[in-house]
Amino acid sequence: MSRTLLSNINSPKDLRQLNPDQLVRVAKELREFIIDVVSTKEGHLGASLGVVELTIALHYYFDTPSDLLVWDVGHQAYGHKILTGRRDIFETNRKLNGISGFPKRDESPYDTFGVGHSSTSISAALGMAISSQLKGDFDKQHIAVIGDASIASGMAFEGLNHAGVTKANLLVVLNDNAIGIDPSVGALKSYLTKAKIGKKPPNDNIIEALNFHYEGPIDGHDLPELLKAFEKLRAIKGPKLLHVITKKGKGLKQAEEDQVKYHAPGKFDKTTGEVIPKNNQDLPPKFQDVFGLTVLELAQNDESIVGITPAMPTGSSLKFMMEEFPDRAFDVGIAEQHAVTLAAGMATQGHKVFCAIYSTFLQRAYDQVIHDVALQNIPVIFCIDRAGLVGNDGATHHGVFDLAFLRCIPNLIIAAPADAIELRQLLYTATQDLQQPMAIRYPRGRGEIKDWKHPFKRLDVGRGRCLQEGSELAVLSLGSISSNVSNSIKAIGSKFSVAHYDMRFLKPLDEDLLKSVFKKFKHIITVEDGTVKGGFGDAVLELAQFENYKGEIHKLGIPDRFIEHGDTDQLYELVGISSEKIRDKIIFILT
Amino acid sequence: MSRTLLSNINSPKDLRQLNPDQLVRVAKELREFIIDVVSTKEGHLGASLGVVELTIALHYYFDTPSDLLVWDVGHQAYGHKILTGRRDIFETNRKLNGISGFPKRDESPYDTFGVGHSSTSISAALGMAISSQLKGDFDKQHIAVIGDASIASGMAFEGLNHAGVTKANLLVVLNDNAIGIDPSVGALKSYLTKAKIGKKPPNDNIIEALNFHYEGPIDGHDLPELLKAFEKLRAIKGPKLLHVITKKGKGLKQAEEDQVKYHAPGKFDKTTGEVIPKNNQDLPPKFQDVFGLTVLELAQNDESIVGITPAMPTGSSLKFMMEEFPDRAFDVGIAEQHAVTLAAGMATQGHKVFCAIYSTFLQRAYDQVIHDVALQNIPVIFCIDRAGLVGNDGATHHGVFDLAFLRCIPNLIIAAPADAIELRQLLYTATQDLQQPMAIRYPRGRGEIKDWKHPFKRLDVGRGRCLQEGSELAVLSLGSISSNVSNSIKAIGSKFSVAHYDMRFLKPLDEDLLKSVFKKFKHIITVEDGTVKGGFGDAVLELAQFENYKGEIHKLGIPDRFIEHGDTDQLYELVGISSEKIRDKIIFILT
Repeated sequence: MSRTLLSNINSPKDLRQLNPDQLVRVAKELREFIIDVVSTKEGHLGASLGVVELTIALHYYFDTPSDLLVWDVGHQAYGHKILTGRRDIFETNRKLNGISGFPKRDESPYDTFGVGHSSTSISAALGMAISSQLKGDFDKQHIAVIGDASIASGMAFEGLNHAGVTKANLLVVLNDNAIGIDPSVGALKSYLTKAKIGKKPPNDNIIEALNFHYEGPIDGHDLPELLKAFEKLRAIKGPKLLHVITKKGKGLKQAEEDQVKYHAPGKFDKTTGEVIPKNNQDLPPKFQDVFGLTVLELAQNDESIVGITPAMPTGSSLKFMMEEFPDRAFDVGIAEQHAVTLAAGMATQGHKVFCAIYSTFLQRAYDQVIHDVALQNIPVIFCIDRAGLVGNDGATHHGVFDLAFLRCIPNLIIAAPADAIELRQLLYTATQDLQQPMAIRYPRGRGEIKDWKHPFKRLDVGRGRCLQEGSELAVLSLGSISSNVSNSIKAIGSKFSVAHYDMRFLKPLDEDLLKSVFKKFKHIITVEDGTVKGGFGDAVLELAQFENYKGEIHKLGIPDRFIEHGDTDQLYELVGISSEKIRDKIIFILT
Repeated sequence: MSRTLLSNINSPKDLRQLNPDQLVRVAKELREFIIDVVSTKEGHLGASLGVVELTIALHYYFDTPSDLLVWDVGHQAYGHKILTGRRDIFETNRKLNGISGFPKRDESPYDTFGVGHSSTSISAALGMAISSQLKGDFDKQHIAVIGDASIASGMAFEGLNHAGVTKANLLVVLNDNAIGIDPSVGALKSYLTKAKIGKKPPNDNIIEALNFHYEGPIDGHDLPELLKAFEKLRAIKGPKLLHVITKKGKGLKQAEEDQVKYHAPGKFDKTTGEVIPKNNQDLPPKFQDVFGLTVLELAQNDESIVGITPAMPTGSSLKFMMEEFPDRAFDVGIAEQHAVTLAAGMATQGHKVFCAIYSTFLQRAYDQVIHDVALQNIPVIFCIDRAGLVGNDGATHHGVFDLAFLRCIPNLIIAAPADAIELRQLLYTATQDLQQPMAIRYPRGRGEIKDWKHPFKRLDVGRGRCLQEGSELAVLSLGSISSNVSNSIKAIGSKFSVAHYDMRFLKPLDEDLLKSVFKKFKHIITVEDGTVKGGFGDAVLELAQFENYKGEIHKLGIPDRFIEHGDTDQLYELVGISSEKIRDKIIFILT
């Protein structure tokens, strides 16, 4: 089918030339376009399919980009990108040097606020609305589109709570599809579920209690209804919320039926909708599965073990434990702050708590890690997934600050396994009479080891190990980036004698091992997949200074700038921690 | 008056021996005891006076410490401490080696969870309640006491939202006095205000919507009513909330009438209630006032300037601007996450936003600083008050991690003025065509300069200055701890030739200045009032290594452990950054 309407829409101005009747056709074309591209180029699918009509209605009715539209999270903003001048470059989505998978301010004036993490849209749009008010601009519209999973997060509540006492011209569109990446949870979700299309929740409902005008719920796939609602709400002053019911994955049968799988399905057949199976059988496991399966195994033998995830049961693989022990594994929703302090509360009562959080989202619970866990020396076990560069999700999602922001916290053990076996043994070690909090960080994706289910063995906390003896230069690595180092040393072969140490622990640092390295080597390279500011390399520098080490230390890691999206290997190359770059660095130093 | 009842209460067991009728007398004695001690030893007053009856009723009715009681924040827990075995050491409250001003787990089994920051109690108590449930203990009670300002914070909402879908035996006591440290704000507060004693909010109220059983509001100073409510609620399974109306400062007329002043009034006459005036007139100003007055002055001349504080208008001195420009200065309540992203939203629309947050509370908004501000390079100005050691509030409130956790964030300028004049000029500088975010951190308390209102002058970003020439050793200091360094050098006199550099900026670091120091000096000391892990000292080490500096660098700062409460000078001495300790270090190195 030729997309006669969509192919002529180069900005919302073109969209606004159409008759309202033509919008249904635009929706059809836009949906097909998204399916076409995502089926071959991969990306997030279900969320954008679910808001095709909403996206069209918003850009048709409102005067974007003069009116300010903020998408929460941004998984759902593909249609927005396609309608706002990025149709022809949409196939570069999430690729190195291509467009971002999320709205991004320097990509387009239509992307009014950069997103990626959830629940920021109400605060940002409220800020914009207050600014307009102060400038005396009462015509400008300010719209935050937020999902039911995101609005249940504390930050969104803070935004609503403030907005309700302002007269700001803020429209919150609640895109209620009862699912985030995994199904939504929590009391607010149960409450919202009571509202059906055409059946308002009781008077003085939770939204009205916060002093918002409440409208809805309406069918979010009904274009005339959406336009009518916008028209009505435009006349209402102050903060207002439009409750819209949509279906995630709308328009692709399989995506509607398996919403978790089709959140980001990988390549699929655009005609049948079937996901194209990956030949994963012979691959080493994902680190998340090593975590999920090991914790399940540990939980089978120790009933004091519990698990917590803030809204990532699938992504963290805690789902394995949730399936077998539904009473002992908890999805608390997008609530990282609560997740950490809940973990602390349980640990005070003798439970061994595995709290699984992505590195980038742990930033949301930083105070709780310090104030509610470390300060009280409560032995919560933080399993920090997606640490390091995460690849195509890009700058908002890279987990590159954790080593630096955790290192300064007293009492905290910080470990980073080099491979799946170390991860397994660290998880086991954490269950053996742990007397203080411990963080274990590991990356997105797969390691290199297939045979990882070794018998449990307790590791010495604060001890690293030598992976490769050598005499001319020592490489000290922390975490799974170790495999790049090993490959670089293999590539060098017998040309130089290079030693390699897997430090395992950032804290406590293996000072004995480091002192022996200082004695033996004039050249040291530290390698980490975290920022060079304040992380592992700086920890080594600190001891080196204290020990009066006179040799050279070269720090490799993530430079002090935000790193964009791309394949992880491309990004490693870009920042200088690919096997080739590490090899080059070693050769350069020794030549 | 002899306190015949209170003097025999050494634990809640003793309290439970009394008749219910005697509790009113206990309340009178307890209130007088608190007033007696706080009037001379200082501390937090109003909050504890407001919950005297509630505290007695809780310990009388529930079987603490077997039943688990969590106080939110903990300002109000003085009565709790006095009734739980700490009456006779209560006069050591907040003093070095004395008891903490907040509940603290290693101080007493009755302190079930360490607090200080707000809004953690629901999550912690819910964790405890779930633990009990998993252990098959259905008798144990779990109670979170939280104020109306704290429950409006996002984290508390996350806890409620989760609790509502559990069957956990959790009782939330909402201590509603319409004030935190400053008066409460927000839509939830407005909503709660509609509920009067004996007049329930509408059916399906906001609490019931979250699937809690709601009870109240009742008079929190009516002991029989409290006991009756506990009895009733005990029989109700699952999560429940008791809405209690109290008056902050209850029982001391002045404290009831000026609740902000009597939150922590300093010394006062226990008979008249009058605060004993401090002779502050000849003292240099508080840093917070230098901030508050300078921002007001800047705002008078630039209407694009706005200010935001999360619940600290008085403490941050943003109140000066709020009074003169109520439309342009915002107290958003205990909502640090929202505050930062709101600031980002306003800054995208061209406003110059001063976002004033205490260092320790900025930990709550860490992700927002990274993801919503720095990643998007939005020029928000963070004014980070209470940085460094804060003194008697202790471990929960010291602002010692900020330099480390901010240094790793790309795009962010980080400045720390040595004195009030530098603070003033940095605030001015931040209004002059700032193109990226900037953090300015300054301490609690007063500086040493009285004549601080110098004409505005733009400072060079990333440039330090030499305060004292010298030849044998260089001290590099960052921030107001500079004055300790100056005093130490003065004390040394002409015995040694010591140079002193005020670095002003942690980021960008003045590399030119440092390189010249590396060339000239074999001995360098870095001094900061932040953690030695990842902060200023490590930044200097990093450059030193890069520049192949062969001299010695000694880092002084906060060691890698949590520092307790005490007078700031005592704590400086303890951690080795008092004038005397710095002097000793210099002499030791040069001798």
